[in-house]
Amino acid sequence: MNNSVYVIGYGITKFGEHFELNPSSLVTQALTDSISSAKIEKKEIKSVFLGSFVSSTNSQTSVSSSCFRDCNLSVPITRIEAGNASGAGAFHQAYIGVKSGFYDCVAVIGVEKFSDFVKSSTIEKILGTTIDYHWEFEMGATLTSLYAILTQAHMREFDTTFEQLASVPVKNHKNGILNEYAQFRREISMERFLNAKRISEPIGRFDPATLCDGAAAVILASSDFIQKHSEVGKQTEVLSSSQASDSIALHHRQELTSLSATKSAAKQAYDIAGISSSDIDVAEVHDSYPIGEILAIEDLGFFEKGEGGKVTLDGRTNLNAEISINTSGGLKSRGDPFGATGIAQIIEIVQQLNREADKRQVKDAKYGLTQNVLGTGAASYVNILSRKEEKK
Amino acid sequence: MNNSVYVIGYGITKFGEHFELNPSSLVTQALTDSISSAKIEKKEIKSVFLGSFVSSTNSQTSVSSSCFRDCNLSVPITRIEAGNASGAGAFHQAYIGVKSGFYDCVAVIGVEKFSDFVKSSTIEKILGTTIDYHWEFEMGATLTSLYAILTQAHMREFDTTFEQLASVPVKNHKNGILNEYAQFRREISMERFLNAKRISEPIGRFDPATLCDGAAAVILASSDFIQKHSEVGKQTEVLSSSQASDSIALHHRQELTSLSATKSAAKQAYDIAGISSSDIDVAEVHDSYPIGEILAIEDLGFFEKGEGGKVTLDGRTNLNAEISINTSGGLKSRGDPFGATGIAQIIEIVQQLNREADKRQVKDAKYGLTQNVLGTGAASYVNILSRKEEKK
Repeated sequence: MNNSVYVIGYGITKFGEHFELNPSSLVTQALTDSISSAKIEKKEIKSVFLGSFVSSTNSQTSVSSSCFRDCNLSVPITRIEAGNASGAGAFHQAYIGVKSGFYDCVAVIGVEKFSDFVKSSTIEKILGTTIDYHWEFEMGATLTSLYAILTQAHMREFDTTFEQLASVPVKNHKNGILNEYAQFRREISMERFLNAKRISEPIGRFDPATLCDGAAAVILASSDFIQKHSEVGKQTEVLSSSQASDSIALHHRQELTSLSATKSAAKQAYDIAGISSSDIDVAEVHDSYPIGEILAIEDLGFFEKGEGGKVTLDGRTNLNAEISINTSGGLKSRGDPFGATGIAQIIEIVQQLNREADKRQVKDAKYGLTQNVLGTGAASYVNILSRKEEKK
Repeated sequence: MNNSVYVIGYGITKFGEHFELNPSSLVTQALTDSISSAKIEKKEIKSVFLGSFVSSTNSQTSVSSSCFRDCNLSVPITRIEAGNASGAGAFHQAYIGVKSGFYDCVAVIGVEKFSDFVKSSTIEKILGTTIDYHWEFEMGATLTSLYAILTQAHMREFDTTFEQLASVPVKNHKNGILNEYAQFRREISMERFLNAKRISEPIGRFDPATLCDGAAAVILASSDFIQKHSEVGKQTEVLSSSQASDSIALHHRQELTSLSATKSAAKQAYDIAGISSSDIDVAEVHDSYPIGEILAIEDLGFFEKGEGGKVTLDGRTNLNAEISINTSGGLKSRGDPFGATGIAQIIEIVQQLNREADKRQVKDAKYGLTQNVLGTGAASYVNILSRKEEKK
């Protein structure tokens, strides 16, 4: 259990609508790029972990096999599904595989192709599986209406305002302009959010992140592997990878103003990494709805409970402000291909820590964090990464 | 990596049609029984691995969360999907988790509820994801027609006969009578198989295993955990757990008369366990079609290539013959709820090694093996277990 784990390469497709590509082609593109980026030979990869949400309807079992066919990787391939957090789920298992010494080098891929689903009722039903299917979805609740409840609770409890909520996607769209992989590279004004038609009070039509297509891959390797392979360039250490669960149904939760799965996963992740929330310079968090980012920056310990909306509106989470949150544009501007999202978060942090983030570079970033959430918080994954030389 | 891994408890529902139960209820039943059987407290379980094939359409994401809700297990829950082999896929990740010292005690659950799907076209499409969806399924091939090709190749190459093929399910139905969890506890005569209508030449209508409902769970623990918990009764050691891949499409395979994924996984499993195929006393193999068992007993090294049909007809794989194959009744008589099948195989071997198999007990069984296959062999999982005192 004493192996250190490093991200040594990555590959990502543009997020958006890829009508011309099937999920396998997206996987092949991201995976091939990640291997080149790691400067290793394909045969060094001992296992593949694939995170993907939607299974049968667009043949994802075949997708994992396409790693074998199209990328010629004749190794064990494991598919993990964890709803919106499928990418983080795959990353976590891959991390355990390398950390434990079971494998010295593995690939982790996340992929989704939502544009294969043409009927919105199909999408509704699929998303219904990320909440309590029987007691929430079949009773008429949706992912959006449940996030509306979480938003209302925060507004009621902490006087969080519409402006504060809107400041989350306003910031993230501003960041996303600088990210070439993002789906929506344009600003959206505060007014536009505030004046938008409400789809589930207080959530407006521009608030949710968009389900889209895309793939992202990273290569993980152990310290032993890196010592033996001097060709490896990038080396971003994964200090910890944690996962925690909570009741899937809101009506079973102790409270609605924080996600206990995030708090548990974060506590464990900080403990193992040996750092605290104040050490984090840059974080990618699950902003599928504005309240998601507000809850995240509070539950991860960056700000006091109840302060999330205020600090965002005050610009304290802007690029190169107090802490840089969702420099990639987040799920909101980058787009949200579920399985790929958790891996894209990792890639953003790796780029930041490697000083490869170009115009969205966080100055002197030493420690980065990712947080990926399943449904309304049935599970949460937290990963902490550091520049190699910064290990405490 | 020096932890030994033990199965310390198990629970299983009857396999068949459970119209009155949802997947979560099936999971709860098997999981609760497995915890009681292990004689441990629920709080000892540090993580849950859930194997299940069919996702969105019957809300399996919610199912994994139901472990939290209905069983009150507030621990990381990971869902693995590997088609027909989803149970073995979950078992393998759980094994790595314990073997590596990451967790000292975990639960592994497999579940499926095929009776939720009423349209046979839906089932066809779902099964199509276990083969090459674009180049096989969408071109008109089905899982059955591809197994028909594998069967024809074996008949052509080794003069395997209809009688030899039929002897597989004849034997397995005979064994299944003795298994209280099996779906079909009755004999089917050789004549009935031989005279059955052909659904895809040479496969007859009674040949395929039946998709059904069910759940199965086992508790895995490390040697350290067992030392600290004297209350633990059952202790069946998992000597090795291996996984290998192959091209998903038959037209990319090197040969059609063996499954290379099974051969690779078996080689690795024997090497790690430090035993050979001749040491195995009892094995549960993937007999979803008769040719599946014939290929398995050859590829696992129990018999020479080409001999599988002959030795089965000769009774050499009967209960308490040379090697006892599918004493549980196999997928054919027990029924095949994909995610649950791989775990049910483990439970059968544990019962055999613990001398709990009642009338189907294999005398003096010391080493047991399971083999679970995805699709036509895109992946294969092999696990080797031993009675505690038999470790070489």
